[in-house]
Amino acid sequence: MDTSEIRNSKFKIRNPDSPIGIFDSGVGGLTVFRAIEQRLPNESLIYLGDTARIPYGVRSPATIERYALECATFVQSRGVKAIVIACNTASALAANYLRSQFELPITGVIRPGSRRAVEKTRNGHIGVIATEATVGSGAYERAMLAIRSGLEITSRACPLFVPLAEEGWLNHPVTRQVAEEYLAELRSSRVDTLVLGCTHYPILRPVIEQTMGDHISYVDSGEAVADEIAKLLEERGLIRRDEQPRVEEFYVTDSAERFRRVAELFLGRPLESVVTVKLGTV
Amino acid sequence: MDTSEIRNSKFKIRNPDSPIGIFDSGVGGLTVFRAIEQRLPNESLIYLGDTARIPYGVRSPATIERYALECATFVQSRGVKAIVIACNTASALAANYLRSQFELPITGVIRPGSRRAVEKTRNGHIGVIATEATVGSGAYERAMLAIRSGLEITSRACPLFVPLAEEGWLNHPVTRQVAEEYLAELRSSRVDTLVLGCTHYPILRPVIEQTMGDHISYVDSGEAVADEIAKLLEERGLIRRDEQPRVEEFYVTDSAERFRRVAELFLGRPLESVVTVKLGTV
Repeated sequence: MDTSEIRNSKFKIRNPDSPIGIFDSGVGGLTVFRAIEQRLPNESLIYLGDTARIPYGVRSPATIERYALECATFVQSRGVKAIVIACNTASALAANYLRSQFELPITGVIRPGSRRAVEKTRNGHIGVIATEATVGSGAYERAMLAIRSGLEITSRACPLFVPLAEEGWLNHPVTRQVAEEYLAELRSSRVDTLVLGCTHYPILRPVIEQTMGDHISYVDSGEAVADEIAKLLEERGLIRRDEQPRVEEFYVTDSAERFRRVAELFLGRPLESVVTVKLGTV
Repeated sequence: MDTSEIRNSKFKIRNPDSPIGIFDSGVGGLTVFRAIEQRLPNESLIYLGDTARIPYGVRSPATIERYALECATFVQSRGVKAIVIACNTASALAANYLRSQFELPITGVIRPGSRRAVEKTRNGHIGVIATEATVGSGAYERAMLAIRSGLEITSRACPLFVPLAEEGWLNHPVTRQVAEEYLAELRSSRVDTLVLGCTHYPILRPVIEQTMGDHISYVDSGEAVADEIAKLLEERGLIRRDEQPRVEEFYVTDSAERFRRVAELFLGRPLESVVTVKLGTV
């Protein structure tokens, strides 16, 4: 994208009528998009899915930081008023770094999800399931212990959950068997609250609930983030006032058609515009 | 990499003593590396694993072509005398494109594997298992039918095999169940030869053989490619004559440590040098 395009962007930076920028490594962040759309139905939304480089969850911290910077730079170039990192891995590894690089308000999914989990737990034992990179970062533990010390937190990486969700095996015997194996330790622990610490996991929630039982409270970070961004915009006087219809734009780094197919199933409606873009300098 | 580094590269282009360049989306191409090393033990080898962007098998043709071009450009810059595309997906989608862009001899894995399968089959029914992108490209069908018309070819994408292999679940009940499901149709067909059309799959060969039975001939493209590159170098007078010890260099686009760990297990020996590099313009 050249600078003239940026200048001609239809939104002015930090204008309440500017859109919110949301990015994820792929389609999983649409769970966050949908929650924000439901919570703030008048806001214009820009979504970027870095589908050419998904999955982030198996990459090194340095690579995740670089990819997140390129995604944030792109959504900023679309003139957004705030950025939502709708990806647990990028939130865990790059949120602080991005806050140091941009003047825009930036919300990740870790802190809002952590706050909600700490509110929900009765016995102080919280479980977190997430990608290898998110678990390895210790970001949920740090965020939750900063809110309340003395919590007992058990984390488990579930690397096959994303490929199983993308294969569409949502209620398949294999997925149930993988869930049995990944969740065995959590099930036999005293955990009363489980954080679905990857935006793909809400799609597998029925199998996860079946395996863990119904005495557990589940935290889906999408809803927590929607509340967070609403609060943040209100505090800064950035709630959209324009009575014109809101705008929504979808950008991906790989095939627009493939994304459109999955995203339309996901959101339950047709998408007007999905554009493929190139990112960064890698 | 800047041009001075290229100039200072220790190898001269098209010199028989120059190394062979091998690239893959990740660690899977080491099955090809090992086969070439065994077939041509005096050759210097440069290996590039594009681990920051693995897996290629779920990406669009345009993205795969771009990634393959960036990988080939990098190994060329190391002064290689020939390039081996040790990735079925990149071979299927980008081999012809790369041949049009470089003057070096370039070998993919599809044609050698296809030739071997056609030699092995007794009844003319051949099975191919591969990534979604490789199956979608029809490259194996085209290559085999060009060698012998009238073959009956059954292809099946097995998207979970790569994440299962990377999870290390090589002989796990879940992997057996996934294999049962993916291979059901092939098992009940008249296929007498099965192409393992992804360089990760030889790692799962015990489970695949257990599921398909021992009346099937298996084609591992690594060995086929090693024969192909040996023939190609002989024909062009490019077999290494230097009596100094051969050189080997490993490059990756994500964490060198993670690659080193898996690669050492894979090759059964320590690696001298693994270097992280940045590729291309995305």
